[in-house]
Amino acid sequence: MTRFAIGVDLGGTNLRVGAINENGAMFDQLNLETLSERGREDVVDRLTGGILELVARWKKHYTLAGIGVGVPGIIKLGKGVVVASPNLPGWENFNVRAQIFKRLNSPIFLDNDANAAALGEKWMGVGKDVQHLCLLTMGTGIGGGLILDGKIWHGLSGMAAELGHVTIYPEGRLCKCGSRGCLEAYAAASAVVIAAQELLEAGKASSGLKHLAGSGNRLTAALLYQLAKEGDSSAKMIFAEVGKALGIAIATFINIFDIDLFVLGGGAVDAWDAFEVSMLEEVFRRSYVYRNSPRRIMKSSLGGNAGIYGAAYLAFQ
Amino acid sequence: MTRFAIGVDLGGTNLRVGAINENGAMFDQLNLETLSERGREDVVDRLTGGILELVARWKKHYTLAGIGVGVPGIIKLGKGVVVASPNLPGWENFNVRAQIFKRLNSPIFLDNDANAAALGEKWMGVGKDVQHLCLLTMGTGIGGGLILDGKIWHGLSGMAAELGHVTIYPEGRLCKCGSRGCLEAYAAASAVVIAAQELLEAGKASSGLKHLAGSGNRLTAALLYQLAKEGDSSAKMIFAEVGKALGIAIATFINIFDIDLFVLGGGAVDAWDAFEVSMLEEVFRRSYVYRNSPRRIMKSSLGGNAGIYGAAYLAFQ
Repeated sequence: MTRFAIGVDLGGTNLRVGAINENGAMFDQLNLETLSERGREDVVDRLTGGILELVARWKKHYTLAGIGVGVPGIIKLGKGVVVASPNLPGWENFNVRAQIFKRLNSPIFLDNDANAAALGEKWMGVGKDVQHLCLLTMGTGIGGGLILDGKIWHGLSGMAAELGHVTIYPEGRLCKCGSRGCLEAYAAASAVVIAAQELLEAGKASSGLKHLAGSGNRLTAALLYQLAKEGDSSAKMIFAEVGKALGIAIATFINIFDIDLFVLGGGAVDAWDAFEVSMLEEVFRRSYVYRNSPRRIMKSSLGGNAGIYGAAYLAFQ
Repeated sequence: MTRFAIGVDLGGTNLRVGAINENGAMFDQLNLETLSERGREDVVDRLTGGILELVARWKKHYTLAGIGVGVPGIIKLGKGVVVASPNLPGWENFNVRAQIFKRLNSPIFLDNDANAAALGEKWMGVGKDVQHLCLLTMGTGIGGGLILDGKIWHGLSGMAAELGHVTIYPEGRLCKCGSRGCLEAYAAASAVVIAAQELLEAGKASSGLKHLAGSGNRLTAALLYQLAKEGDSSAKMIFAEVGKALGIAIATFINIFDIDLFVLGGGAVDAWDAFEVSMLEEVFRRSYVYRNSPRRIMKSSLGGNAGIYGAAYLAFQ
């Protein structure tokens, strides 16, 4: 009988559960809401409820290989404990694995959401043909995942690949992590909005940006990208700065790893056209490894589903 | 019969050849001069001459396991070609492995000098008890070596671990690699001297630094460290800046790798006392992975011999 696995991608807003077979075909998917404001026990109830529903639907037809869950934040994998999670308030020092186990009475494979997304891209996405890749997820924050020799690089305590927190500008913007000038503070979707607010406050915004800000809409990276596509000078500059920050970071990663594939995922990657040129210019300028051996820097091909694929793959392994 | 290996550390100034047994005891060593100004063929002659001399001395008593050579610069390992080597002028695109083979008629194991030093520290130095380490050699430039899962991480083209060329200050000093603000431009021995010259030119130097510069001695990192130990404000500030740059880089490495040991080697590490405090402050400030799981940041214990040990170990493997 064909085997299948359940992959879960737990995000700050969306909770998605997929049933995927060994060939990498997702044949059923539940799109739930995280509703983290109802508390962590409630989220885990909903998460395990989704898993049980898909298992019940398919266990007569296929053999369940296992269940994988990707969780945002810093996780001590050995213990299954979320150390900190900016997108899941109240999850500090929460033993999420034990809580899921209690409800399912079945072991699960747990990993950080960006690690899972990187593994998903390696399995069924743009990384199919490589052994090593480095992934950045550009969302509210910036997550990182690192695949070396075909496997997730976890580091000693499972906290490796915090790629959003490499320093770009040592005296730059304060970051939620306590440092200054992190990549996340310059290239996350939230940073795009902050950059726009800074221009507005400094009185340096274009008329288009002023108009958008005054329109009553809440500023978002998506609206600012729309503005950049319309040719607005402030919006274009904001995304050029995103590209520059990404380029500085990616050049550093290339100089460190000398691997062939760098993947950008997450919602803010939709603005690719607006930051690609300045990103590639910066990588070229800063990495002689890249100048000597050009590497691929690409958009995720699985998009928002990468984490589900990767979580399922954890279970198949 | 006990086996031994020959390890060679080829530097810009010194060419050292050691005979080491399987237990990691170096029982014979030749300290030669590189004399790179005489041309690369001449250097290779001297290098192979040293190898042949040690082999001749010991082959009656022990079995030769192999020969390893550490070469400074960027090496395409697959081909045995030096792509570029700032410390060995004229070695661009030089197939050093083929040239050594021609003279010895025996295969050799080739690697970058900093990779070899990292492997040496893993085998017989401060890294004996770990599986992963990251090494920075602070010399004229800054080299990097990365041991992951007990092995050198080479990357796809053998150019990985160019840790001296991670960006610290995006708009900072020009670096020889073509980028700006690289770690090397702020923490190498040469950068210490440049920082002193900048203070002198800006008229901001202490009287002690002015006195040293006017004394007819060529400014060196060692003399400036001496001055810092005497309490000179300019010299102390220069090394505090070295520590800050190192701390920014090491925090980034910890956030990326989450491994337990970071080793500093090379001549400029003698000034450890003068940069340690600002280095550790910066790591603490910039890495929540470190704050959560403190990592060891230490001086090399093999010092200048690390590269010889590592090169010999390449041959034993």
